[in-house]
Amino acid sequence: MHTDNCTCTNDFFINIPAADQPRLVIIGGGFAGLYLAKHLKNANLQIVLLDRNNFHAFQPLLYQVATAMLEPEAVASSFRKIFKEQKNFHFRMVGVRRIDPVNKIVTTDAGCLAYDILVIATGVRTNFYGMEDVARHAFTMKNVPDAIAIRQRIFGNFEKALMTEDENERDALMNIVIVGGGPTGIEIAGAIGELKKFILPYDYRELDLHRMRIHLVEATNRLLTGMSDKAADLARKGLEKFSVNLLLNTKITAYNGKVVITEDGRKLQTRMLIWVAGMTADIPPGLDRIETVGEGRIRVDLYNSVAGYDDIYALGDVASVVTENTPRGHAMLAPVAIQQAKNLAENISLRIEGKGEGMKPFRYHDRGIMATIGRNQAIVEAPGFSFGGLPAWLAWLFVHLLTLVGFRNKVIAFINWAWNYLSYDRGMRLIIRPRKNT
Amino acid sequence: MHTDNCTCTNDFFINIPAADQPRLVIIGGGFAGLYLAKHLKNANLQIVLLDRNNFHAFQPLLYQVATAMLEPEAVASSFRKIFKEQKNFHFRMVGVRRIDPVNKIVTTDAGCLAYDILVIATGVRTNFYGMEDVARHAFTMKNVPDAIAIRQRIFGNFEKALMTEDENERDALMNIVIVGGGPTGIEIAGAIGELKKFILPYDYRELDLHRMRIHLVEATNRLLTGMSDKAADLARKGLEKFSVNLLLNTKITAYNGKVVITEDGRKLQTRMLIWVAGMTADIPPGLDRIETVGEGRIRVDLYNSVAGYDDIYALGDVASVVTENTPRGHAMLAPVAIQQAKNLAENISLRIEGKGEGMKPFRYHDRGIMATIGRNQAIVEAPGFSFGGLPAWLAWLFVHLLTLVGFRNKVIAFINWAWNYLSYDRGMRLIIRPRKNT
Repeated sequence: MHTDNCTCTNDFFINIPAADQPRLVIIGGGFAGLYLAKHLKNANLQIVLLDRNNFHAFQPLLYQVATAMLEPEAVASSFRKIFKEQKNFHFRMVGVRRIDPVNKIVTTDAGCLAYDILVIATGVRTNFYGMEDVARHAFTMKNVPDAIAIRQRIFGNFEKALMTEDENERDALMNIVIVGGGPTGIEIAGAIGELKKFILPYDYRELDLHRMRIHLVEATNRLLTGMSDKAADLARKGLEKFSVNLLLNTKITAYNGKVVITEDGRKLQTRMLIWVAGMTADIPPGLDRIETVGEGRIRVDLYNSVAGYDDIYALGDVASVVTENTPRGHAMLAPVAIQQAKNLAENISLRIEGKGEGMKPFRYHDRGIMATIGRNQAIVEAPGFSFGGLPAWLAWLFVHLLTLVGFRNKVIAFINWAWNYLSYDRGMRLIIRPRKNT
Repeated sequence: MHTDNCTCTNDFFINIPAADQPRLVIIGGGFAGLYLAKHLKNANLQIVLLDRNNFHAFQPLLYQVATAMLEPEAVASSFRKIFKEQKNFHFRMVGVRRIDPVNKIVTTDAGCLAYDILVIATGVRTNFYGMEDVARHAFTMKNVPDAIAIRQRIFGNFEKALMTEDENERDALMNIVIVGGGPTGIEIAGAIGELKKFILPYDYRELDLHRMRIHLVEATNRLLTGMSDKAADLARKGLEKFSVNLLLNTKITAYNGKVVITEDGRKLQTRMLIWVAGMTADIPPGLDRIETVGEGRIRVDLYNSVAGYDDIYALGDVASVVTENTPRGHAMLAPVAIQQAKNLAENISLRIEGKGEGMKPFRYHDRGIMATIGRNQAIVEAPGFSFGGLPAWLAWLFVHLLTLVGFRNKVIAFINWAWNYLSYDRGMRLIIRPRKNT
């Protein structure tokens, strides 16, 4: 049982009701943390979920918030609402500063917290590979505020473009550079391409939209690394339809907020750089014995157990289950996190019941990857087959609607999609600037 | 015709396409400015609407955004979307700094703008009657960011209340003080009362919700000044049902962010003060000859013409049509603004066609006032009759759904309301903290 009287670098311990159960602390409420807590509904555990936000963000649809297709509220679900009925669940809205594995304590912004079992599900953060100027000026797309910031900036730049006399500045305000040719980069480029075709020429009749450039920059020689050549080809064709300019084999070396410089000396004038090129594991400090793999991810065994620690697990994007077929861990995908959560929940339940010998190793069931490019355009790739076009787009819609958390959010998303599709319009072209003390 | 070569305190003139029409500049896109521009659709005028935001906010429903019933996007409509089809309409997202009535120029944050006819529809801003500490710490409810800030703070305070060891601080974090017993104060108090009853006890099972106090403070001896005694009585009873504590004849004298001090020496511990008690007209500087009435509103004649200026009109909350029956102008209500907009549009059309003698004076058709208190509770008061309870609540729903701008927003609001009503739930309990450069 955890003890609340150990060394704590903060002044006090966060108040959690006393319980006769071991305490499982989960850091991070993404897909991994959320599904783990859900699957442990009936376990004899006190579950404490820690997250900086009071909501789970449905990351696969953030790009739709960023491009005025969905309201932020449609992709965010309050943890308290999701777990309203789950008696063994507690939530605290805090950031984690440090893990003390010796005394089994997590130090947070609001005080300390003792754990019996700790699960790290902190995911990844954007990696700028040391380019500080890019980090300072670029937009990222890891969470809801990021997506809102992109939406506001796109439309804010167009409002400014209308009011400048300087032609170069006007072009820079209209141009958008996206760095990273993975699924997120493809999706945001396609969605901005649609904006250019269907929305912006009508909203900004006084601007010459033919001058707007959308550049998609990718360091390797192809799009969608990890998917087939056929998928990459479908993506390329889809993006060309929306006049997205592909720059393959191209690396960014600098961005000062106005001009992007590439390794081969090219200059791209833009007031908006969206960086979805690299990720690095977001591991709280304090774990000296961990081994990292690939993008700095914590190496875990087939039971998602962190080597060197008895009571610490890691899963989802932050963790890397290294096997013969996955030397750098599984792809950073929601289905991997969700399947790991289910497996780990079963294993933890067995462990606390003293039936540890029944634990099952994690095995990923690949049901496919999908990415959408725009209206009627998507790519679905599953083991053994792949397809594109309208059927893929409908499959994409169906799967995302089904997995979106909460019935209300499903309904709101569906109505918005139907509305956008039928009217060639997007309702969310709003620049809602926050009040200072929000 | 306007001239773009006069004295301009900024460096340059905002670029607006040349037109062979007189230019009408409208400052402010609230109900007055929005409906005026709409009604002038076929007028031989170049219309330029200036607003700090790129959207019209449906103010009567801001309290629902503040209390997690509606997403901000449901009450905001992009001007460019509303006016997509209107060829004589131009929009610029700028704040206005000064009016120069001699040279007929408006100076904005982004440059100058010449006008032939100027319409001031800037509305009102919150009046703290010189109490700077209250102004610094209080929350207001004039626009969408204000409403979002209230939502975030309510739920943010409850998250903090869970984590403090200090009982007084915990109470202060749960308590909410609302100042102002008009329709807005009633509506927000009722909606927070509902939160206390139906949402917060389930979201925060670990807190003792019986300790939460909702105080509604009103300086006069009754609620809903301007409506009948019967209406005031209905409001009082409705609020008591949600255990809102009414403090009539009570004036606030200080608030330091923690304790509210009243004139009679009472102290109310609260981390959240919502101030909806006073308004003052928001008039851009530069008009030296105007006469103000009541809450600093611009005195206009029955044609909404500003005395002393030939080409300047004012309408909506910022203006005051002084008649025998309305010595301080009409009530600050959406229907007044909307009716003035229609009347002024007709008069301006006649004037530019040289048929000025046909202009009609403004006459307000009072179709009633309504306010809602919560589930199944509202008050409707029209000349000659008034009613409350469920019929009033349904009437309120119907009227607000009908007047909400845009079909998409109507649908989204309706679904949210149906959802909230049937599930006793609210989907928007989210604390979405803005990214720095949003």
